[in-house]
Amino acid sequence: MQSPIDHRPGAQIHGRAVFPHAHLTGISGLQPHEILFLLDEAEQWIEANRTRAKSDHRLDGLTQINAFFENSTRTLLSFEIAGKRLGADVVNMHAAQSSVKKGETLIDTAMTLNAMRADVIVIRHMSSGAVQLIADKVDCPVLNAGDGSHEHPTQALLDALTIRRRRGSIAHQRVVICGDILHSRVARSNILALTALAAEVRVVAPSTLMPAAIEKMHVTPFTDFDAALEGADVVMMLRLQNERMSGAFIPSTREYHLNYGLTPERLARAKPDALVMHPGPMNRGVEIDSSVADMPGRSAITEQVEMGVAVRMACLDVLTRKARGVEGWA
Amino acid sequence: MQSPIDHRPGAQIHGRAVFPHAHLTGISGLQPHEILFLLDEAEQWIEANRTRAKSDHRLDGLTQINAFFENSTRTLLSFEIAGKRLGADVVNMHAAQSSVKKGETLIDTAMTLNAMRADVIVIRHMSSGAVQLIADKVDCPVLNAGDGSHEHPTQALLDALTIRRRRGSIAHQRVVICGDILHSRVARSNILALTALAAEVRVVAPSTLMPAAIEKMHVTPFTDFDAALEGADVVMMLRLQNERMSGAFIPSTREYHLNYGLTPERLARAKPDALVMHPGPMNRGVEIDSSVADMPGRSAITEQVEMGVAVRMACLDVLTRKARGVEGWA
Amino acid sequence: MQSPIDHRPGAQIHGRAVFPHAHLTGISGLQPHEILFLLDEAEQWIEANRTRAKSDHRLDGLTQINAFFENSTRTLLSFEIAGKRLGADVVNMHAAQSSVKKGETLIDTAMTLNAMRADVIVIRHMSSGAVQLIADKVDCPVLNAGDGSHEHPTQALLDALTIRRRRGSIAHQRVVICGDILHSRVARSNILALTALAAEVRVVAPSTLMPAAIEKMHVTPFTDFDAALEGADVVMMLRLQNERMSGAFIPSTREYHLNYGLTPERLARAKPDALVMHPGPMNRGVEIDSSVADMPGRSAITEQVEMGVAVRMACLDVLTRKARGVEGWA
Repeated sequence: MQSPIDHRPGAQIHGRAVFPHAHLTGISGLQPHEILFLLDEAEQWIEANRTRAKSDHRLDGLTQINAFFENSTRTLLSFEIAGKRLGADVVNMHAAQSSVKKGETLIDTAMTLNAMRADVIVIRHMSSGAVQLIADKVDCPVLNAGDGSHEHPTQALLDALTIRRRRGSIAHQRVVICGDILHSRVARSNILALTALAAEVRVVAPSTLMPAAIEKMHVTPFTDFDAALEGADVVMMLRLQNERMSGAFIPSTREYHLNYGLTPERLARAKPDALVMHPGPMNRGVEIDSSVADMPGRSAITEQVEMGVAVRMACLDVLTRKARGVEGWA
Repeated sequence: MQSPIDHRPGAQIHGRAVFPHAHLTGISGLQPHEILFLLDEAEQWIEANRTRAKSDHRLDGLTQINAFFENSTRTLLSFEIAGKRLGADVVNMHAAQSSVKKGETLIDTAMTLNAMRADVIVIRHMSSGAVQLIADKVDCPVLNAGDGSHEHPTQALLDALTIRRRRGSIAHQRVVICGDILHSRVARSNILALTALAAEVRVVAPSTLMPAAIEKMHVTPFTDFDAALEGADVVMMLRLQNERMSGAFIPSTREYHLNYGLTPERLARAKPDALVMHPGPMNRGVEIDSSVADMPGRSAITEQVEMGVAVRMACLDVLTRKARGVEGWA
Repeated sequence: MQSPIDHRPGAQIHGRAVFPHAHLTGISGLQPHEILFLLDEAEQWIEANRTRAKSDHRLDGLTQINAFFENSTRTLLSFEIAGKRLGADVVNMHAAQSSVKKGETLIDTAMTLNAMRADVIVIRHMSSGAVQLIADKVDCPVLNAGDGSHEHPTQALLDALTIRRRRGSIAHQRVVICGDILHSRVARSNILALTALAAEVRVVAPSTLMPAAIEKMHVTPFTDFDAALEGADVVMMLRLQNERMSGAFIPSTREYHLNYGLTPERLARAKPDALVMHPGPMNRGVEIDSSVADMPGRSAITEQVEMGVAVRMACLDVLTRKARGVEGWA
């Protein structure tokens, strides 16, 4: 196996304005320079969002439908705010009130949104692959806001942007991702993005929550969190899903915390300035101690939320450029 | 009884710009030229919605409240998108979070919306007549988005628009409506609109789901779907409501499909170019086979959804003209 | 004890344009002239809302997040309409779909909203003090839309505005507030506002629903509703919460109505032109008779709703002035 650092020579080539994909269904399939292009595009919105001059008009008159078949406050809020700041007419479709409950097929729902002449559809779904299924059917760009245990590409982009801004670069950073690697779309998309950008990625999980052939993703697996943390530049904790807290995967929350919770003592094994990240919402005292989550200069957790809006603005902008006739979209 | 074709000589008179009604609570009470006026108004939005230049500003500064006491994803989305494309401030009131749960009367809720100075209120309610009750009390136009088993006028308008565009005309078209005629507000509004526009309407249902004196609505009732389909120009299938699938009305879903499901074999009894329609969401394999629902050149089901947004834009525009001081509203 | 009329000499001083508070978490802490300033600011929106020219652009480009951890149709609608009429990008966060359900702490939720760069956050929460907790943490103005049994300041402001417009003044008006004084944030905020503005406030409740040391709030407590009503200028009924209707606090709904329901006979004890108020939603036939609720020239209940939108527009405007660089905010 080639080292995760060397095997992608194109990773450091900053892209010209190229993003040739119609949809963003995952990090898989993106070239390193395409990922970097989206990060570069996101940069402009960070400062804008910090001022009062948030409003932009490039999506004026466009209809953005957020079709969330699975609840998610923060991701929905983030996409809704992103679209509104760009001027789009943003409409939310909540699963709870959806035709899905009436037995409609996913494709029929997608065709309905398409027939209403959406200009961009943001989808979150509990089934892996559901977003691609819809992307194959509709006439407008589709953005994956998380599908099953498959991908959550904008989370990976906002995490990469946070790392790049805080650590100066992504390449050669040792990033430790700890938690339910087996089921986590956040882990999966982050592994794809970070290895594409030549980071050294270590994944940590109890053996019951570690995928079988994880080495094929160019990461180094650990079951011992302490060992994995040695020399880490970034420690990215995953949320422990409540539904896994009891039962086959995890003996108990207390035992999970003992072995895989990020404590100040454990963090001391990482580099002295190592970054602490978490996609939220956090279970304080379970996968992460409050003292770590709130550690000044180390925790990047609220910054991740901020980068999320910027990254989603960039994705909504870039994906709709073709339809808007904007030069340089591809 | 006069024939449904001949008894309305005014049906083909295209109206000048006249819509003298303050509200749209139903098709009942509309003159044929008023129905055609709304269809004509809707035409302009079809092409506009297909381009990126969707945004219009005629409802700028107006407050549109969608008060949905009964859940409906597609109708709510359609009205929300319609209002936003016209520039209105659109606010949704969901029943699930409503004061109705706290024991407030419907009239009190209506007076509340009115006191907030809504400019147009779109209402969906599980009780027949609830929309009229509200329309009688408030100072702004009220649009019925479906009330009990009474009416669903914008559905009838979008269906009529679809037929007119696909068949060239509504007059003299043989339209077969099949399903729960007894409880369906879609059937009721469609019968009123289509007979007003001189179509020949046949209704098909098991006898338990056929109203007693349906002939008074100038339609021909059938219990035999095959017989009704002979020479049909349009086959409009109704959704089988889940709550009727078991119990007194329908022996079983399988038996319903056997007698009243639209299969390719059955469709062959209609004209070779007969249109297939369904208001959605569909129960594929129950009231309609997938091969029929997706039949190229024949199924108009997604086109119906598209016409829905255009029709609702027209209704919102026309009903608010008086308040906006626009010439020619009446 | 000093009389509630005389002990606040500053109450009648109309303020210059001064509102030095970053947040509006309650009426407590506001000076009389600051309350009056907000009422004066609200006046301009009343007429504007009655015309078609509702739309204002002073909050263009600003993000208003309505974070409602407790459901409330009318308050949410009112704040949403208020924000949209001022041009803000309004985003609703519903508790039902919230990260709170996933075990996130309130502070983490607040930090998330803050990191998304909200410009104003409107919060409703079931816990007293939750709004202050959030206000202490975020960088933008926070508006309390009701927190536990603590405060509901915009309700008190809209009630004060209604009284001032209908009675000419607030000072020296005898206002009788009847209902669950113990748990009601509406009562609490109203007592604070009305006594600050030199009204004479009487509170009426069964002894189980009367706070122990209520006299310290400069009001006169009564358990006998009839006695309290003598010479009243305003009768403000509180909603009987369903959760108190059975159990320790109230023997039965019927008995409550007998002793504390506002009937025409009872109202006759007040001044002949006494105003009837209720924050809604009403339980007709429980705390208030329909004939009283709908009494022409006497009931101000729908006017209260109307004043609500105007008051919330004023609060959103005033609180964001500092960030918008508008002169005269403080």
